[in-house]
Amino acid sequence: MSADHGGPRAAAPPPPLTPVPDVPRPTAAEEARTLMASTNVATLATLSDDGSPWASLVTFATLTGGAPVLFVSTLAEHGRNLQRDGRSSIVVAQPSPSGDPLAAGRVTLAGTAHRPEGAEADAARAAYLTGVDEADMFISFSDFSLYVIAVERVRWVGGYGRMDSATPADYAAAEPDPVGDARGAIAHLNADHADALLAMAQALGGHPDATAARCTGADRYGLDLSVDTPRGRAVTRVGFAEPVTTRDGLRSAAVELTRRARSS
Amino acid sequence: MSADHGGPRAAAPPPPLTPVPDVPRPTAAEEARTLMASTNVATLATLSDDGSPWASLVTFATLTGGAPVLFVSTLAEHGRNLQRDGRSSIVVAQPSPSGDPLAAGRVTLAGTAHRPEGAEADAARAAYLTGVDEADMFISFSDFSLYVIAVERVRWVGGYGRMDSATPADYAAAEPDPVGDARGAIAHLNADHADALLAMAQALGGHPDATAARCTGADRYGLDLSVDTPRGRAVTRVGFAEPVTTRDGLRSAAVELTRRARSS
Repeated sequence: MSADHGGPRAAAPPPPLTPVPDVPRPTAAEEARTLMASTNVATLATLSDDGSPWASLVTFATLTGGAPVLFVSTLAEHGRNLQRDGRSSIVVAQPSPSGDPLAAGRVTLAGTAHRPEGAEADAARAAYLTGVDEADMFISFSDFSLYVIAVERVRWVGGYGRMDSATPADYAAAEPDPVGDARGAIAHLNADHADALLAMAQALGGHPDATAARCTGADRYGLDLSVDTPRGRAVTRVGFAEPVTTRDGLRSAAVELTRRARSS
Repeated sequence: MSADHGGPRAAAPPPPLTPVPDVPRPTAAEEARTLMASTNVATLATLSDDGSPWASLVTFATLTGGAPVLFVSTLAEHGRNLQRDGRSSIVVAQPSPSGDPLAAGRVTLAGTAHRPEGAEADAARAAYLTGVDEADMFISFSDFSLYVIAVERVRWVGGYGRMDSATPADYAAAEPDPVGDARGAIAHLNADHADALLAMAQALGGHPDATAARCTGADRYGLDLSVDTPRGRAVTRVGFAEPVTTRDGLRSAAVELTRRARSS
């Protein structure tokens, strides 16, 4: 998944001292679906009449399988472009990242946009009205048309050195992470449950000599931890007993993880 | 500048009761330069090897004349695309808009990217290092290359019904608004100087019957006001005596405007 830039590299973090079970991570397809579910603002790339690319801001929604739904005006260049040539790509970036924008997640979908008909048009219109608060203001404008992008390529970038492609079928079958934006939950874990995180790092994360642990990520499968040890700062990952299936499920999964760590 | 969507239209706001001087607004070229100066994150559209568009996230800087500077890796698709075909477009959106994303400003630049050489390469590298905090982390990576986009088309959208194109020459000659992100100043005016805004609306903004006024925008040339009158809610604009040329100049320009309103 990572790639070598041929430049200087950081020192390797200290390895685990005890065996660490293999904890699954969200797949690129799941990461892509999660990003697509996290916002309704994207940038669209279309082809101008001379075949050159044209970037523009759009609001979007998604159909059940993650296909982007757009609603664009032929008064705008992107609307005229799609009318002429459906080849298109959209990129969605993690909303409001803190710090370095290139360390945050984003996904590019590329495919071909078409005007939906029949049941697909109904679904697309309903999705757009649900997903874009302001849609009822212009859903009746005669110069606007619905488009659905049939996804042909999916490229996810999770930050520096975390990136992968997904097949259209895997993208369509994947589900957005029910945990969603975990920043609030992560802040709560770090503020109020530092002792539980330390127990996880020591008992389950392979660092029995850990002196402190901080949660840096949370998803349906587990928690990412940054661990202070006398050997330096390590990173590890601890897995939930079962994947979380609801937004509220993160709390009980973390409680179960804590109990397991303390009884190890 | 506006366009008719052929749909329902809001009722017209009440007209001014007294003559209102014509207050200049930033040009599309100025709006474009201001947006480009407001952030270092953009979306890039390039051409994949089959000629279809590819959207991706990039950080950028600008040369003195506003030409975008990119620094991209051939390990990424956009880097390989630019290496093969320089035709490209970037869109920059107003960072952190509140509420409806389509009501916020954005600008699309389209043109052709080239590898800068000599003095232009030095300027591009210096601009990128200054404009992108994290650049020193990867400026030496061997798979990254600097590109400068020679701007051929500029399309600014300020929100619903506010949009215009600018020539490349006007874009290059325009200056970013020295007022920059005025949201803090606007909040201060509304919180602490409602009386001054009301005086402006009554004496200079054409609504002597105004009962309240709220600042909704500020730029080098003046203030946009939303004005409550017994006839309904109006919008107006009041102009500074001289264009503001520094970020701090907004304060003294508003003081002068208040003095003028109160002595009218």
